[in-house]
Amino acid sequence: MALGRLSDQQRSQAVQAMAAALEAAAGRIVAANQADLEAAAADGLPPALVARLKLDAAKLAGAIDGVRQVAQLPDPLGVRQLHRELDADLVLERVSVPLGVLGVIFEARPDAVMQIASLAIRSGNGALLKGGSEASGSCAAIHAALRRGLEASAVDPAALELLTSRQESLALLRLDGLVDLIIPRGSNALVRFIQDNTRIPVLGHADGICHLYVDRAADCAQALHLALDSKTQYPAACNAIETLLVHAEVAPAFLAAAVPAFAAAGVELRGDAAACALGVPTAAMPADWDTEYSDLILSVRVVESLEQALEHIARHGSRHTEAICTTDAAAADRFLAGVDSAGVYLNCSTRFADGFRYGFGAEVGISTQTLPPRGPVGLEGLVTYRYRLRGEGHVAADYASGQRRFTHRSLPL
Amino acid sequence: MALGRLSDQQRSQAVQAMAAALEAAAGRIVAANQADLEAAAADGLPPALVARLKLDAAKLAGAIDGVRQVAQLPDPLGVRQLHRELDADLVLERVSVPLGVLGVIFEARPDAVMQIASLAIRSGNGALLKGGSEASGSCAAIHAALRRGLEASAVDPAALELLTSRQESLALLRLDGLVDLIIPRGSNALVRFIQDNTRIPVLGHADGICHLYVDRAADCAQALHLALDSKTQYPAACNAIETLLVHAEVAPAFLAAAVPAFAAAGVELRGDAAACALGVPTAAMPADWDTEYSDLILSVRVVESLEQALEHIARHGSRHTEAICTTDAAAADRFLAGVDSAGVYLNCSTRFADGFRYGFGAEVGISTQTLPPRGPVGLEGLVTYRYRLRGEGHVAADYASGQRRFTHRSLPL
Repeated sequence: MALGRLSDQQRSQAVQAMAAALEAAAGRIVAANQADLEAAAADGLPPALVARLKLDAAKLAGAIDGVRQVAQLPDPLGVRQLHRELDADLVLERVSVPLGVLGVIFEARPDAVMQIASLAIRSGNGALLKGGSEASGSCAAIHAALRRGLEASAVDPAALELLTSRQESLALLRLDGLVDLIIPRGSNALVRFIQDNTRIPVLGHADGICHLYVDRAADCAQALHLALDSKTQYPAACNAIETLLVHAEVAPAFLAAAVPAFAAAGVELRGDAAACALGVPTAAMPADWDTEYSDLILSVRVVESLEQALEHIARHGSRHTEAICTTDAAAADRFLAGVDSAGVYLNCSTRFADGFRYGFGAEVGISTQTLPPRGPVGLEGLVTYRYRLRGEGHVAADYASGQRRFTHRSLPL
Repeated sequence: MALGRLSDQQRSQAVQAMAAALEAAAGRIVAANQADLEAAAADGLPPALVARLKLDAAKLAGAIDGVRQVAQLPDPLGVRQLHRELDADLVLERVSVPLGVLGVIFEARPDAVMQIASLAIRSGNGALLKGGSEASGSCAAIHAALRRGLEASAVDPAALELLTSRQESLALLRLDGLVDLIIPRGSNALVRFIQDNTRIPVLGHADGICHLYVDRAADCAQALHLALDSKTQYPAACNAIETLLVHAEVAPAFLAAAVPAFAAAGVELRGDAAACALGVPTAAMPADWDTEYSDLILSVRVVESLEQALEHIARHGSRHTEAICTTDAAAADRFLAGVDSAGVYLNCSTRFADGFRYGFGAEVGISTQTLPPRGPVGLEGLVTYRYRLRGEGHVAADYASGQRRFTHRSLPL
């Protein structure tokens, strides 16, 4: 694809032009969003969805700042990852290249269109963008501005296409061979639907059921500080905890402080029998251990050992992010080695599981798949690599016969 | 999984023990294979399949050597890929870890069971192995020996399970959540069947339709040398070429030498009209351009330009490996930048697309997917990574409020 052959500067300039065009169209975008919001109110859309849909002048300005930041990210393309002499004058290199075409499916969140479109262009990828019908006016206004921006750049505006119907969205899922990666941004149900209906790789996660384990050797004050942040700092986030596992030895002291603290923070606690005996007001049902509340609700289980905590996480976790609070180095090592999640933390909040906080400059998404890219994914999730081999008439038969031998000598990157 | 927590030395020793047990069981394995071969002859199995099925004492000794080499490969686990201070006493690292459980499905090729089983154990992964029914006696004898070897090691022999029925094989494809990667080893039809019937990631490729483009500025003698090696050195390999694209300006001179040379090598040439006018004896049908012959057959097309060659490759190639032969640096750069295949080569044979030749020490498979791992995949294809974050009570709210700021300082790996 021609876009992938443009220079770093051309792609960066194109993203700057997108930001400028968004700024020029700000009035139209906010007005289109206002119309979407009025239609949503008339349709009785749930308040959480309306909040995500809303794009006022301040939120738009923030999103445009984000686009400018993407323009300034280091070029993800042309990075040499491997450089090796196979034999004299036969040199192998592995270089990062764009994926090709991204399929991006949003629910509400018109601001995500700007973010993903700018990441796509920065990394040399085309994108097919499909917004939710509730955001159709906002998405059309944003898309028109983005394309006007690209018209003032070296990038063909056709690199960003907006899909508008559900039929087109379903057709997108069948474009294996043409679309290289699907990025869903929306509810768990949306992500699961997509995963079940496409052969194209999907970047994303269906669930974020994160755990904090308060070890026998935990500093209880620190554990409560971490638990409160992990649950309440932004409860709708996928990296918020849903379950607290507390070692039986510290459970009385920890819960004596935690039960009132969570009540004061407006968090409903649901405990197993042992937790309820120590003051947790509501009994947890079996389904609680497998539920992503995305809300101010937290299940609490008392465990007899670190091993029991590990078993609980293996059984109920979604391999997103889990944390241990402990002052015991051996327990910390056992937990860090034994939990198979994208992020495993010691004495810090699960809310750090985020591309910006990790220092990636931008976040394409968080993946809970086992294969890389895993966890918070920056621009590297939008590139792949290619091997280039340059010779001077080298043939394999000479090595099969033993006439020549490989040197396999590393060269500087 | 406990296997992933064993030390480098324990996993390496386990692979050595597997090799020793295979050696001790060599007589039984060869006898079991002999019985499989006799049954195959009685069933009238095609000769190509019988050749793959055969495992005599010499081939077995070679395979056992391969297992010993795997034991000596550098440890793929615990490699720190990223090390970054997010803030004082809040340190992020990204470390390689095993995938978990591999599902491996073979057709014939009992030697591949030894190779993949040793790669799995070396990299801390369990494996569910399913051989073809034609190799059932050989696979059972090999599997029994491998498990006897593991009994003399720190690895639980249950890490390697042999599936024997087609029902088990189909069930394996549905184990998403338990099996992390499927590795098929067999025909294109097998790989496609698996890709169509599982949600688990599949490492492999369904087709290897590779091209050599002889540019206007090619050294014709070199081009013929490369073409002969790329086609005839091992025609059944996926990295052998199926189509030769020849620039019209050099076609008369090149084909004058190539037509008799390929005839002497036993290769059937099938050409487009222009190629036939220059001596190619047989006319190509439209389907030829999309066919992986895996045999001594080569299609030949005369193109008017480098751009036409690029278009042909984009339309008919399988994104495996393509090569250009040219002395023109600009044409070489255009080709190396413009072909979206896992391997893009200049003036060398496509047959170099191989993990051993690339210096990876072992090959798990060759992937033609766009996302990494792409191309020849070594042990890195059997590992993923995990983020570990160690803090001292750090919470996200302090950064959201601006009270603390991230430092994002790189630390030595």
